[in-house]
Amino acid sequence: MTKRSILTFETYDDWDVVPMEAEYTVYNLPHGASLDSLPQEAFDTVEAFAFRGHDHLGAAVMDAFPKLGMIANYGVGYDTIDVAHATSRGIRVSNTPDVLTEDVADLAVGMLIAGARGMTGASDWIRSGNWAKNGAYGLQRKVSGSRVGVVGLGRIGRAVAERLVPFGCDIHYFARSPKDTPGWTHHGDIVSLAGAVDSLIVCVSGGPETIGIVGAEAIAALGPDGFLVNASRGTTLDEGALLDALESGGLGRAALDVFLNEPDLDPRFLALDNVLLSPHQSSGTVETRKVMGQLQRDNLAAYFAGTPLLTPVN
Amino acid sequence: MTKRSILTFETYDDWDVVPMEAEYTVYNLPHGASLDSLPQEAFDTVEAFAFRGHDHLGAAVMDAFPKLGMIANYGVGYDTIDVAHATSRGIRVSNTPDVLTEDVADLAVGMLIAGARGMTGASDWIRSGNWAKNGAYGLQRKVSGSRVGVVGLGRIGRAVAERLVPFGCDIHYFARSPKDTPGWTHHGDIVSLAGAVDSLIVCVSGGPETIGIVGAEAIAALGPDGFLVNASRGTTLDEGALLDALESGGLGRAALDVFLNEPDLDPRFLALDNVLLSPHQSSGTVETRKVMGQLQRDNLAAYFAGTPLLTPVN
Repeated sequence: MTKRSILTFETYDDWDVVPMEAEYTVYNLPHGASLDSLPQEAFDTVEAFAFRGHDHLGAAVMDAFPKLGMIANYGVGYDTIDVAHATSRGIRVSNTPDVLTEDVADLAVGMLIAGARGMTGASDWIRSGNWAKNGAYGLQRKVSGSRVGVVGLGRIGRAVAERLVPFGCDIHYFARSPKDTPGWTHHGDIVSLAGAVDSLIVCVSGGPETIGIVGAEAIAALGPDGFLVNASRGTTLDEGALLDALESGGLGRAALDVFLNEPDLDPRFLALDNVLLSPHQSSGTVETRKVMGQLQRDNLAAYFAGTPLLTPVN
Repeated sequence: MTKRSILTFETYDDWDVVPMEAEYTVYNLPHGASLDSLPQEAFDTVEAFAFRGHDHLGAAVMDAFPKLGMIANYGVGYDTIDVAHATSRGIRVSNTPDVLTEDVADLAVGMLIAGARGMTGASDWIRSGNWAKNGAYGLQRKVSGSRVGVVGLGRIGRAVAERLVPFGCDIHYFARSPKDTPGWTHHGDIVSLAGAVDSLIVCVSGGPETIGIVGAEAIAALGPDGFLVNASRGTTLDEGALLDALESGGLGRAALDVFLNEPDLDPRFLALDNVLLSPHQSSGTVETRKVMGQLQRDNLAAYFAGTPLLTPVN
């Protein structure tokens, strides 16, 4: 039987490439490559995309493949995919929710602790010889018992908040309406939330509805002693206001796994010593990436078999 | 009324110095200074020590102060103090337990996440320009759902384990006898514990009874994929065996807040990229240090008032 054809975007690990090539004729579009680099038969035969990466996937790319019927996204966030256009053409879209919730929540809590306790600076303090030469590292800030605000109480926000319960943290959250929680405090407004807490952790999805929802006013409300953690998308923060506040001392600290224009992040971040930088690795564990790849392939297999997608987006 | 005299060791923050000087005539022995640097009236009048630091406090120093009746230690661990000699001379000793449990547990969990997720390397990956130039940071290891072994289920060990419950970690622990736990697995032997888990967190107290209790055999049992976290005392590990294993790949990773001969740690640590280094800052937050200083002064006040010490050691 002739293999069906798929197009993969960016680079996959061997544990994904091997089973994809066993099942399909696989064309690949590496990061930064132009569609022109593909052979004509790719345009003629590709029926599904195994999509990943942070570049925009819009009408022009989809329409270049007349037989395209399926976009299987590797990741929970699909804000880079023009789902409306896909739907209008009858192209199915799937993602990989749930399987990466734990990793993202783990990293968000790790960033909260590492940022509050100054752990990267602490490592530098030793490696530069300062500890032996100049004595104790500066005192940092306590996590247990602090007031933490979670922006967005979806799967990931809830997983973050639950992890902070045994730390005795006083949990506040922003959501459009109050949720069923073990006594956490609801705020219908992010500025109100930011004014009530020591640290704010952004856990909302990306996409047009959340662009800049943590803005200059919320950052000011968090204040010179405040700490902002972002493990969602670079778009959810007003990055210019954030940089201004970190530079001026209007905001105390930040820990960021996501940025606008990543990986080409704003060089102003590199000049700051009150920000913990992380290269969008919230789901970047061996364990989780294997499960994400399997779920992506399971959605592709369902599409080709004509059975319901496991985790459909549209 | 004449002020009583105390001797402070090492350096205190202003929020401690001001109230101590208001209450007492204060002599100070900075880190590395010799007793000879003190004036004769210090030896004649000092009745109590406000002790801190990691240098040994033995008979010679105590006996140089004939009126010494009290050593108030700043910190929970008093392994550097010769308590037996103090007791034989009728000198009371106090410490500051409980108030730093949360900070130590927070940092231990932070080291577990930061180490597993390679957070300092991730920061370096961005700051060195590698993310933009060479693409995604390498995949790391998952924390949620992993098997974690806690060596010592005292106040701090229990606080660490409790924090890991909502991470879905499978908790194992070493203690001489089984404790009352929510289903955690007891091991009466540290090598058995190390062989059953992905990560081992050392939470026992220092002192003669725990010297090298995590030895070469336990490190080997943890193995090339294993991760060792130490937030207790440098003495509790066989540091030579640990360095050998980290260098050879016999142990996967380590995260260490404590070292032998700190702050002059073994330079072999600095050549390793599979170890997260932290400069003994487990209780190093503004919030906790203020509470520790207050408890130290409350013990001093109780001694001088002739009332029971709040947190006696002997």
